Amino acid sequence: MKAELIAVGTEILTGQIVNTNAQFLSEKFAELGIDVFFHTAVGDNEKRLLSVLDIASKRSDLIVLCGGLGPTEDDLTKQTLAKFLGKNLVFDSTALAKLDRFFASRKGRVRTPNNERQAQLVEGSRALQNPAGLAVGALIEENQVTYVVLPGPPSELKAMFTESLQPLLLHSNQKLYSRVLRFFGIGESQLVTILADVIENQSDPTLAPYAKTGEVTLRLSTKAEDEETAKQKLDCLEQEILARDHLATCLYGYGDDNSLSKIVARELEEQGLRFAMVENLTAGLLQADLTLSLQNRQLFKGGLVVSDERVDVQKAQELAAFICEDSKADVGLALLGELKPESQADNVMATYYIAVSVHGQLTVTEVDLGGYTEQHMRHIACLHALNTMRNILLNHKNLL
Amino acid sequence: MKAELIAVGTEILTGQIVNTNAQFLSEKFAELGIDVFFHTAVGDNEKRLLSVLDIASKRSDLIVLCGGLGPTEDDLTKQTLAKFLGKNLVFDSTALAKLDRFFASRKGRVRTPNNERQAQLVEGSRALQNPAGLAVGALIEENQVTYVVLPGPPSELKAMFTESLQPLLLHSNQKLYSRVLRFFGIGESQLVTILADVIENQSDPTLAPYAKTGEVTLRLSTKAEDEETAKQKLDCLEQEILARDHLATCLYGYGDDNSLSKIVARELEEQGLRFAMVENLTAGLLQADLTLSLQNRQLFKGGLVVSDERVDVQKAQELAAFICEDSKADVGLALLGELKPESQADNVMATYYIAVSVHGQLTVTEVDLGGYTEQHMRHIACLHALNTMRNILLNHKNLL
Repeated sequence: MKAELIAVGTEILTGQIVNTNAQFLSEKFAELGIDVFFHTAVGDNEKRLLSVLDIASKRSDLIVLCGGLGPTEDDLTKQTLAKFLGKNLVFDSTALAKLDRFFASRKGRVRTPNNERQAQLVEGSRALQNPAGLAVGALIEENQVTYVVLPGPPSELKAMFTESLQPLLLHSNQKLYSRVLRFFGIGESQLVTILADVIENQSDPTLAPYAKTGEVTLRLSTKAEDEETAKQKLDCLEQEILARDHLATCLYGYGDDNSLSKIVARELEEQGLRFAMVENLTAGLLQADLTLSLQNRQLFKGGLVVSDERVDVQKAQELAAFICEDSKADVGLALLGELKPESQADNVMATYYIAVSVHGQLTVTEVDLGGYTEQHMRHIACLHALNTMRNILLNHKNLL
Repeated sequence: MKAELIAVGTEILTGQIVNTNAQFLSEKFAELGIDVFFHTAVGDNEKRLLSVLDIASKRSDLIVLCGGLGPTEDDLTKQTLAKFLGKNLVFDSTALAKLDRFFASRKGRVRTPNNERQAQLVEGSRALQNPAGLAVGALIEENQVTYVVLPGPPSELKAMFTESLQPLLLHSNQKLYSRVLRFFGIGESQLVTILADVIENQSDPTLAPYAKTGEVTLRLSTKAEDEETAKQKLDCLEQEILARDHLATCLYGYGDDNSLSKIVARELEEQGLRFAMVENLTAGLLQADLTLSLQNRQLFKGGLVVSDERVDVQKAQELAAFICEDSKADVGLALLGELKPESQADNVMATYYIAVSVHGQLTVTEVDLGGYTEQHMRHIACLHALNTMRNILLNHKNLL
């Protein structure tokens, strides 16, 4: 199946917003094994949108229009698609009922005919309900081409794709199952090199690497009729991946919505460990990051940001022990870095000492970092501290 | 002039990267008064790229191709454009000399014919040198259509656009002058409403609002023959803007590469004020943010993150005074928030107290925030603290 994405909105063409919907849908279509051959963005202009639809209908089997479903005058995607297909617009009763409920619950808001357009779809379409907004989406097949209409706001588009569109794009009895592996301590190019043959020969499950700041993720996806079959296929590929080189030791977790700070926060919460921290160069970033992932705020006993520019193993140990005792915490962590004199603005170099005290038992790790801007280095240093803490907390749990 | 942007790269169609180049160029073209009517993304595939060029050449006067200039097999933008125009590829001597120098200085690197392709351009093109990489760009006019070829990596594309392409797109004796006004304490929709008639009737200078987290910027742009003429036109528009409503009090600074934390850091440095901080809910984020903008690290005397959940005006004052004295600083700031019990995950509500002590003189500001996620609220709370500090530091300077 050849797919094409068309974003409708002048604000994309003037650079006021980035077309992130195209990335989201492309990633999802890749998982589904659907080839996306073109992205197009066009303004809120009937003539140009009609010309884009004409071009797309001649080269693609699946055309996904994003945006232009709102209540303002310049939202014209559904009207233009109807004109292109020579069809009328009709009201979707579910979407209209939702609109009724919305305006009934907001007495002050004036309901205009423009608002009602959000509940319309091209005659003969299958409605895609909007779990996060008022504009209804739609899918219609015409002359062997499938046209899909999705809302522009990313939160609405994502929810509608996941809940309504994705199930329709799969074979009737299949579902898409994905597993995301998260790695720290290995770069994307190194990971891709180690897995070159697996990536080259992938068919089912598919395998896609993504680089983030300081970490890499691998998304494994398979279409299957039930979860057990999918699990077996994904387990098999995961085992093959983790058997390579030192990849098993770099794996720190699973899932899209995960991070080293979430893993550490969860571990602290499971073990009921109160913690406190000291930082210098990262100036509070580590505490800010870890506490944001914390559900149980009571576990954070506070922290210090020190301005010391000269640090060493001993100072790191002393401060980890001090903050732990002074804050009446179970775990004290000191993340202390010393900049090297040869540092430059876009090539900051530093040695970091990560000292962790768990119930009085001290460990220290030393990490040399370089080649980043200061902002980037701070972030990487925090990830090293979190990964160190993760390993220590896992050991601590195993010793219990 | 009708412009169209074509991104070439399969990694865009699989969702591995976002097409941020399209946003950058769209914004720049808007400043130049050039209308962008279409964005297209196409993979590294000759046939499909030829079809896209054919479509674009029939509807646009200016076609900008981005990406696909690198040394790997699948980089085929220049080759395909040459084929489309029925022309040969030739070497650009400047780019070739740069390639020679590059490989001469890196003894270990093997130079292949693929590398040399980076120094080629379509016969008859004007070369656009690459200040940040090896691949040369080009501009060629053919049958009243101007084709531009730019490299894909954003750092290379931006540098080439600014240094080589933009001057060619302006009238021979004109230059583009821009001024960015930065506002805090007003939303984008409110700003746009206040300035509706100015935005509606803009021609020269042009005016474009952009929303960022917690702040709004306005970009004023004009084409002029010299800086003095541009300055007069921009001054005139700026005065008109700042005379509206309370906009003058919301303006906190100028420039693209600016922020409240940079303004505060500069003010502390200019006045030579040492500072220290206490936070609770923001958990170090404010200290991390402000110190990243600091050139003179000696001025930061350290800080505390406290875990107190109940706070009030008095506690904020006490902690601001305490941290100032204890750290031997000139300025002590306490940013303390208390969550309201009705808070929900995506609608966190809190009262923040911002206490600032400057040489023993205390002021406190109270801010009620709500309607955000916790991460978003932390960021907004830091911006309020920085804006409060900015006002106090400006007053302090005026009193000296």
